[in-house]
Amino acid sequence: MTSTTTSTQDALASIPTEEAEVRRLDRAHVFHSWSAQAHIDPLPIVSAAGSYFTDYEGKRYLDFSSQLVNVNIGHQHPRMIQAIQDYAARMTTIQPGLANDARSEAARLISEVAGEGLNKVFFTNAGAEANENAIRMARLHTGRPKILAMYRSYHGATHGAIGLTGDPRRWGTEPHTVPGIVHFWGPYPYRSSFHSETPEQETERALAHLRDTIMVEGAQTIAGIILEPIVGTNGILVPPPGYLAGVREICDEHGILLISDEVMAGFGRAGEWFAIQHWGVRPDLISFAKGVNSGYLPLGGVVLSDAVAATFDDRVYPGGLTYSGHPLACASAVASIQIFKDEGIIENARRLGDEVIGPELAKLAEKHPSVGDVRGLGVFWAVELVRNRQTREPLVPYNASGADAKPMADFAAACKAGGVWPMTHFNRTHVVPPCTISEDEVREGLAILDLALDTTDTYYAE
Amino acid sequence: MTSTTTSTQDALASIPTEEAEVRRLDRAHVFHSWSAQAHIDPLPIVSAAGSYFTDYEGKRYLDFSSQLVNVNIGHQHPRMIQAIQDYAARMTTIQPGLANDARSEAARLISEVAGEGLNKVFFTNAGAEANENAIRMARLHTGRPKILAMYRSYHGATHGAIGLTGDPRRWGTEPHTVPGIVHFWGPYPYRSSFHSETPEQETERALAHLRDTIMVEGAQTIAGIILEPIVGTNGILVPPPGYLAGVREICDEHGILLISDEVMAGFGRAGEWFAIQHWGVRPDLISFAKGVNSGYLPLGGVVLSDAVAATFDDRVYPGGLTYSGHPLACASAVASIQIFKDEGIIENARRLGDEVIGPELAKLAEKHPSVGDVRGLGVFWAVELVRNRQTREPLVPYNASGADAKPMADFAAACKAGGVWPMTHFNRTHVVPPCTISEDEVREGLAILDLALDTTDTYYAE
Ligand SMILES: Cc1ncc(COP(=O)(O)O)c(C=O)c1O
Ligand SMILES: Cc1ncc(COP(=O)(O)O)c(C=O)c1O
Repeated sequence: MTSTTTSTQDALASIPTEEAEVRRLDRAHVFHSWSAQAHIDPLPIVSAAGSYFTDYEGKRYLDFSSQLVNVNIGHQHPRMIQAIQDYAARMTTIQPGLANDARSEAARLISEVAGEGLNKVFFTNAGAEANENAIRMARLHTGRPKILAMYRSYHGATHGAIGLTGDPRRWGTEPHTVPGIVHFWGPYPYRSSFHSETPEQETERALAHLRDTIMVEGAQTIAGIILEPIVGTNGILVPPPGYLAGVREICDEHGILLISDEVMAGFGRAGEWFAIQHWGVRPDLISFAKGVNSGYLPLGGVVLSDAVAATFDDRVYPGGLTYSGHPLACASAVASIQIFKDEGIIENARRLGDEVIGPELAKLAEKHPSVGDVRGLGVFWAVELVRNRQTREPLVPYNASGADAKPMADFAAACKAGGVWPMTHFNRTHVVPPCTISEDEVREGLAILDLALDTTDTYYAE
Repeated sequence: MTSTTTSTQDALASIPTEEAEVRRLDRAHVFHSWSAQAHIDPLPIVSAAGSYFTDYEGKRYLDFSSQLVNVNIGHQHPRMIQAIQDYAARMTTIQPGLANDARSEAARLISEVAGEGLNKVFFTNAGAEANENAIRMARLHTGRPKILAMYRSYHGATHGAIGLTGDPRRWGTEPHTVPGIVHFWGPYPYRSSFHSETPEQETERALAHLRDTIMVEGAQTIAGIILEPIVGTNGILVPPPGYLAGVREICDEHGILLISDEVMAGFGRAGEWFAIQHWGVRPDLISFAKGVNSGYLPLGGVVLSDAVAATFDDRVYPGGLTYSGHPLACASAVASIQIFKDEGIIENARRLGDEVIGPELAKLAEKHPSVGDVRGLGVFWAVELVRNRQTREPLVPYNASGADAKPMADFAAACKAGGVWPMTHFNRTHVVPPCTISEDEVREGLAILDLALDTTDTYYAE
């Protein structure tokens, strides 16, 4: 044992090794996101590898959630870990005002996968900050005050990002969100806000609704439209054909910027580098985080179109953060993009969606009456659960908690008992494993989902 | 060479090794914080160690800025690097809803150094998000809408944090900052807003001003007062004796929470774990980042008093982020706190301030007419430059840029030519080296400052 090793073991030596102590310190000292602190009991996790993570009892869970839909490359990918260790030995942190090799290369690679005309990257620590800066850029570029954002969306929890958010997570911060944000309705064929009967109609009517909203708000007051190209947490709502191209057209007509929030949908999740590329649409700004480096270190950012970037050539951009372009985080993004390319990870996600997850979920929908709808692409799928297929009454009410949410809690418990960690939200379970998952692992997980859906079927009533 | 090494070199292989290419990619693809992009030329840095970093020409700079006042433990501390490498091999990321050993221990250690009654930690990615959450907590705990913040302050650049900020960096985001923030004036003996002639008077009058502000705003509408216990970027304004205790008293009188923004002042910078401890004052919320792990990975957070934490025992806290309590970032905080203790880093910072930096800066002030004021403690010092000691006219105007800022640009250039990387802001240079700097290194840096001050003296006019 070298002396370096000895002294390091010292520096981490106080980390507890027993589950009970990990849990006790967590309950005593860790304040958790989005929780009533006395009503949670977070499960201590001892290790993770590939598509699985393991608790202190040795129980292994197949990660059908990719944590918070961020571990796109799978857990503890050996080449990622080695890259982090190697780059850490060279450099960890340098301020944004100096230049760094890993940051330069990460920005080049991200610009490259973003495609033509999207050549500059502003790095942040994660997704909320990316959206905060995207809307600031849009306002300053256009000189207009308003941002349009969708109902049924999540854009992060800082005061700007939570203002964009169109779900109940915004409520607790209101009325202290930033002024000038207007919400509109997006397409959702299964629960159409527009009484559509076909995807074509949904596209047409959702675009008419957006045009009307712009008309009454005043196009000349609108800086940007921000949307998740595929709505993530709020339902994996895949836009019907023509919708995103239609939004692009409306934006062009009125000089409004299109901001694609790719924090969850990007970097392989939808079988593309950026989900919006699935429809061949080019946004003016892209916000990203999560899959860019699978959250091995915190990292996010904004990709700017050449036109938006040029606005700040001679004019100071009034935004920044201590860790913009953090060298070690950028190095992990370089490694991740390289590994994605080497290992065909985007292609794996796309193929699994087309050939395995899609067809298998369709079978589950046939078998289980409580499955009202399945939709998705890549490794980005939702199973929407209902009490009745005709009325489409959700298995649990919107934003349910406590006893009202029991059917979903039972479903989640059944999955966990079976060895799958699910991602549940409202009346849905999302099938969002790592992009690196194997076909066998997918089938193993879906077999457990199949069993767990028996519990939701018990709530079904014709 | 093992096969792991080979495959990893692949994953980082595209990172350029030549300075010219690092610079070219930076200019082509990296969008920089707080900058007019066509008017900057960031210097590529090839390595860093201890109190120094080095460019591609082999020129070494003594880091008198600690980057953005965050590298408190110095660059590439071997035990920190080893700890990051070791923990990365075990685990990098796990979602906030599961428990993790490093996060549990980091929260325990931070609570411990925060002192009695401050037992829970909500982790964020950095400083802005910490303040975003601190003000959300204060509003929900008190049920009151307003937050009081100081002019001459910086709290971060997300829409909530920039709204708190009391300096020109807020202007570019206005009027889109969050509603309900009110700014007041803090103490600044050298440029008193209250026409005081002694520190005692400054305390008394600044407190009277705060009381008046609360009176006219309505105490029952005010959730919290946020302040930097020692104002950082805006001048290293050390509060005169009694000020912070007075603010605490006013808060208690009116049920207002005191939020100490320790992002820059905390973790050794001021020769204390938290700067406010210098005056024995206990805040209700502490926001931290930077020095907690010296930015080796992005990490920040909020320490909550028991009373504030209890508000969210049965009530859901409406805030969160994907990387709250990031395991690898938390492990680096555990290591850093352990190393601080083992190596007496807090004590080193305190001693250097008292015995070396303070006395030596006083000598520079005697020697150089352009030095109007020096102030600070620990490794947290400002040298305020003037054109005239009687009028105290600043060497450059407030928020100067371009030709107006030339005297400060010349000063910075002289420092860099001499091998010191300075932290300049407006008409000041801050002496903010790592807390681990040696006495010899401090003296070496101050000798170069001494020479550089000859250039500012040329602007002096009786
Ligand atoms: C679409 C989208 N945008 C933004 C965010 C916020 O990202 P972060 O939690 O990293 O701030 C999320 C997080 O889930 C997201 O899904
Ligand atoms: C006192 C203070 N608060 C908050 C911040 C914002 O921190 P970050 O840049 O990590 O968001 C800073 C950054 O300099 C700061 O000095």
